[in-house]
Amino acid sequence: MNSEVTAFAPASVSNVSCGFDIMGFALRGAGDTVTARRCDAPGVRIRSISGSSSALPPDRGNTAFLPVAALLGRCAPGLGIELDIRKGVPVGGGIGSSAASAVAAVVAADALLGTRLAQADLLALAVEGEKHASGAVHVDNLAPSLMGGFVLVRGYDPIDVVRIAVAPGFWCGVISPDVEIRTADARKILPQSVRLRDVVRQTGNAAGLVAGLLTGDAALVGRSLVDVIAEPARRHLIPAYEAMRLAALRAGALGCGISGSGPSVYALASSEDAACGAAQAMERALRAEGHDCTLIVSPLGAPGAAVRA
Amino acid sequence: MNSEVTAFAPASVSNVSCGFDIMGFALRGAGDTVTARRCDAPGVRIRSISGSSSALPPDRGNTAFLPVAALLGRCAPGLGIELDIRKGVPVGGGIGSSAASAVAAVVAADALLGTRLAQADLLALAVEGEKHASGAVHVDNLAPSLMGGFVLVRGYDPIDVVRIAVAPGFWCGVISPDVEIRTADARKILPQSVRLRDVVRQTGNAAGLVAGLLTGDAALVGRSLVDVIAEPARRHLIPAYEAMRLAALRAGALGCGISGSGPSVYALASSEDAACGAAQAMERALRAEGHDCTLIVSPLGAPGAAVRA
Repeated sequence: MNSEVTAFAPASVSNVSCGFDIMGFALRGAGDTVTARRCDAPGVRIRSISGSSSALPPDRGNTAFLPVAALLGRCAPGLGIELDIRKGVPVGGGIGSSAASAVAAVVAADALLGTRLAQADLLALAVEGEKHASGAVHVDNLAPSLMGGFVLVRGYDPIDVVRIAVAPGFWCGVISPDVEIRTADARKILPQSVRLRDVVRQTGNAAGLVAGLLTGDAALVGRSLVDVIAEPARRHLIPAYEAMRLAALRAGALGCGISGSGPSVYALASSEDAACGAAQAMERALRAEGHDCTLIVSPLGAPGAAVRA
Repeated sequence: MNSEVTAFAPASVSNVSCGFDIMGFALRGAGDTVTARRCDAPGVRIRSISGSSSALPPDRGNTAFLPVAALLGRCAPGLGIELDIRKGVPVGGGIGSSAASAVAAVVAADALLGTRLAQADLLALAVEGEKHASGAVHVDNLAPSLMGGFVLVRGYDPIDVVRIAVAPGFWCGVISPDVEIRTADARKILPQSVRLRDVVRQTGNAAGLVAGLLTGDAALVGRSLVDVIAEPARRHLIPAYEAMRLAALRAGALGCGISGSGPSVYALASSEDAACGAAQAMERALRAEGHDCTLIVSPLGAPGAAVRA
């Protein structure tokens, strides 16, 4: 057994407009890094939290805690692991911060213990951790952060995750404004029921998006990136949302929408240049209204979590 | 200009469980045949209706009437066309009877007049005809009957039809029981709104079905063939529904559900043999409860409408 293992898990865009609660993809260039180290006291201890969001709870309220505790309980009762968490994903930004911590922690601990669990088992542990820490489960962030790529969560009972083999060429630009939206608050304002005609629109777009990504039909992807459920309820929470959306489309994006529960906004494009252009256009639109932000440009479907050599 | 042209348009399965109002595919072995013939009196006249359902209205209440009238008005005002309609699709059976008549009529008239309209224009004419004749538009029957194959109706405003290139090997068995369900009645009992959690289930399954069909993942297709919206409301209208469903699954079908608004029931399978077995098992289950039926076995995505030489 190693005495110390470090793992990285990427940020991710979930929901993807028409894919509310069922789609997500990994981002390149942002993520959380967790070092797992053997210690004498049995159980889990979070020794440090650093980076972009150091004010997180260092206990079981942290999504990194319970997945590792469950792994220990299942595979190595009596052993102790301490964690150093380096946050590279802003908390409350809508790009899978809590998922990245949970995934990086369980991947690091799995490698430290040499347990080599299957991906589905690692996902189940991360799901349990997030459920207890945040009260909600975001498999559409956890699965892409763990597996990489573009992921469809076909079902939740049981969890059924399908990797979508996206045709080459799609890129994504993401803007994370300097405001925080608590996921729990963003869920409270969602409609509890949806008109049948809007269900037909949402299912048509979700099916169209998957078809477009698999076959490389960029125009179909663009037409499908419409959200008739969450976006109308949440857009007012995001500064300069309409201005950013229009700027991205004018700059050549295929489509644009809220990442997760916001405030991050993503735009899909059919080339790296177009994604850069869309992200820069969104950034200008946001700064014009007095907000700061961070910017990510990534191929659609970056690699998932991995142990660092 | 020919003096007479005959066209055939196939029956079709619509809804396809999770694809309520957005998916459909053409069937081989059943359809309507329409002969269009020049006549002296201007406008459209339905001269005869024969075959399985001869009691249909011979006027603008027939879905074949208005598409041809609109085509004449647009391309050949002052000319006259008379139609002989031979029904091979049972009316009120849930396998696209009104769509097959509309499509065969407009394809025959287009060939008779030599207008050679694009498929999208023919579809638009058929849509108008069905809207006026039946009060509802079933693009998920019209489009596969016209184009053949498996079709996704991504959106209705404007109509956006996407052909899904289904991987080879999928087959379908369809049982049409000897009862009639009026589509208008079957729509009245649908829920007008859907719980958000059920929307998530329906979108996950719709996206999963398209991914499975495109990539040839039969197990994914099977897991995705779940309908949480229309089936719970309509299943009681169909004789022996649960018995047929279980029989199909036991015989090796990937999944099973209501075709259109019923009473026809379809089962998908990953081979011709399995589709035959599922159809025969459903037939036995239905006959055991004292009902007669017709049976179709077809590859998933048969050819669309065509002029007969």
